[in-house]
Amino acid sequence: MKLYGYWRSGATWRVRIALAWKGIPYGYEAVHLLKDGGQQHQEAYRSKNPMESLPLLEWQENGTVRRLAQSLAILEYLEERFPAPPLLPANAFLRARARQIAEMVNSGIQPFQTPDTLSQVKALGGQDRPWVHRFLGKGLAALEKVVGETAGTFAVGDAPSFADCCLVPQIYAARRWKLDLTPFPTLTRIEATCEALPAFQSAHPERQPDVEHARR
Amino acid sequence: MKLYGYWRSGATWRVRIALAWKGIPYGYEAVHLLKDGGQQHQEAYRSKNPMESLPLLEWQENGTVRRLAQSLAILEYLEERFPAPPLLPANAFLRARARQIAEMVNSGIQPFQTPDTLSQVKALGGQDRPWVHRFLGKGLAALEKVVGETAGTFAVGDAPSFADCCLVPQIYAARRWKLDLTPFPTLTRIEATCEALPAFQSAHPERQPDVEHARR
Repeated sequence: MKLYGYWRSGATWRVRIALAWKGIPYGYEAVHLLKDGGQQHQEAYRSKNPMESLPLLEWQENGTVRRLAQSLAILEYLEERFPAPPLLPANAFLRARARQIAEMVNSGIQPFQTPDTLSQVKALGGQDRPWVHRFLGKGLAALEKVVGETAGTFAVGDAPSFADCCLVPQIYAARRWKLDLTPFPTLTRIEATCEALPAFQSAHPERQPDVEHARR
Repeated sequence: MKLYGYWRSGATWRVRIALAWKGIPYGYEAVHLLKDGGQQHQEAYRSKNPMESLPLLEWQENGTVRRLAQSLAILEYLEERFPAPPLLPANAFLRARARQIAEMVNSGIQPFQTPDTLSQVKALGGQDRPWVHRFLGKGLAALEKVVGETAGTFAVGDAPSFADCCLVPQIYAARRWKLDLTPFPTLTRIEATCEALPAFQSAHPERQPDVEHARR
């Protein structure tokens, strides 16, 4: 399997966590989200994923190249194909809640902080930080409550799930955007629990081949 | 089961299609997204869904009230609990592609057209229509290509799936925003196929108890 990604793409990071947690070996091809106006917009990548977004998973199946985009669709696929160790709880309602939390990040927060969205905000004369803070603050406040209802040592019970795969990169992004995380003690506690696990450590942006320390 | 929704909310509509397709009886409670500054922001609803978004599904389980938000998490829950008739293909790769298409709508287009997002665009001095057209045009162009790879009579093969549950409301929204749909013949063909089915007909906004004809 080959993962097209970018070290600091939160959506790519979610998939890296799942691949590492399940012990699936994979190749990594960097697509630079900012260089050359965004390599995701160039024909070489766009022909593989017309949405021009990351991540993209690629593999061979009976001689056919298969490609799959959208991080949560990829997580579901990996969960079906490599069910152990799981990234969804055994209980049906808790499984649904893990997906709810993942979607609150995926569709409720992350779309508002992509380079593409921020270019549109800037085109209107807006500034990126207050825009991101508005959606991030609102989303994390809701997550603090919703996660509080199911949290054990992780977001849903005592094992990592899709919810944690999405939360950890989102909290990292909140730090980059210098949002005050004091109002979110449950979320930051879970982040710390996750960061102690080797799978989360190896998936971290700073550990990726395309990391750019000079940019930080 | 009780569904909190709004007649013209695309995300609620997705769930109505799934409930109708699977023949699940449910009660409907309208939450007006625009009246009184948005009833989804009022305490009565916010206490049930801190994200202050629609839809929300509520049911009783062994005497406990269960609540689930985020339309795609709800679709997955319904698919697990009421597997027949299915809304996901039997083949693993096509199932993944149905989810990819659903996410392209759910996280790639729909977040940019909600009343909440548009209020922020207007606060920057932007106009809602060009903003929506930018994200909608880009997203539908990508969908036309991606859906073209798997389409039969429906978006993925010859049976409706999560992909169609998301596509139909999105195309309706594109018409409301007066986007030219000529470049998307595959998507509009699939929409027409869906609209011939009773489940899609009964889920249509115009058929909901809270429809407001005077507003159109």
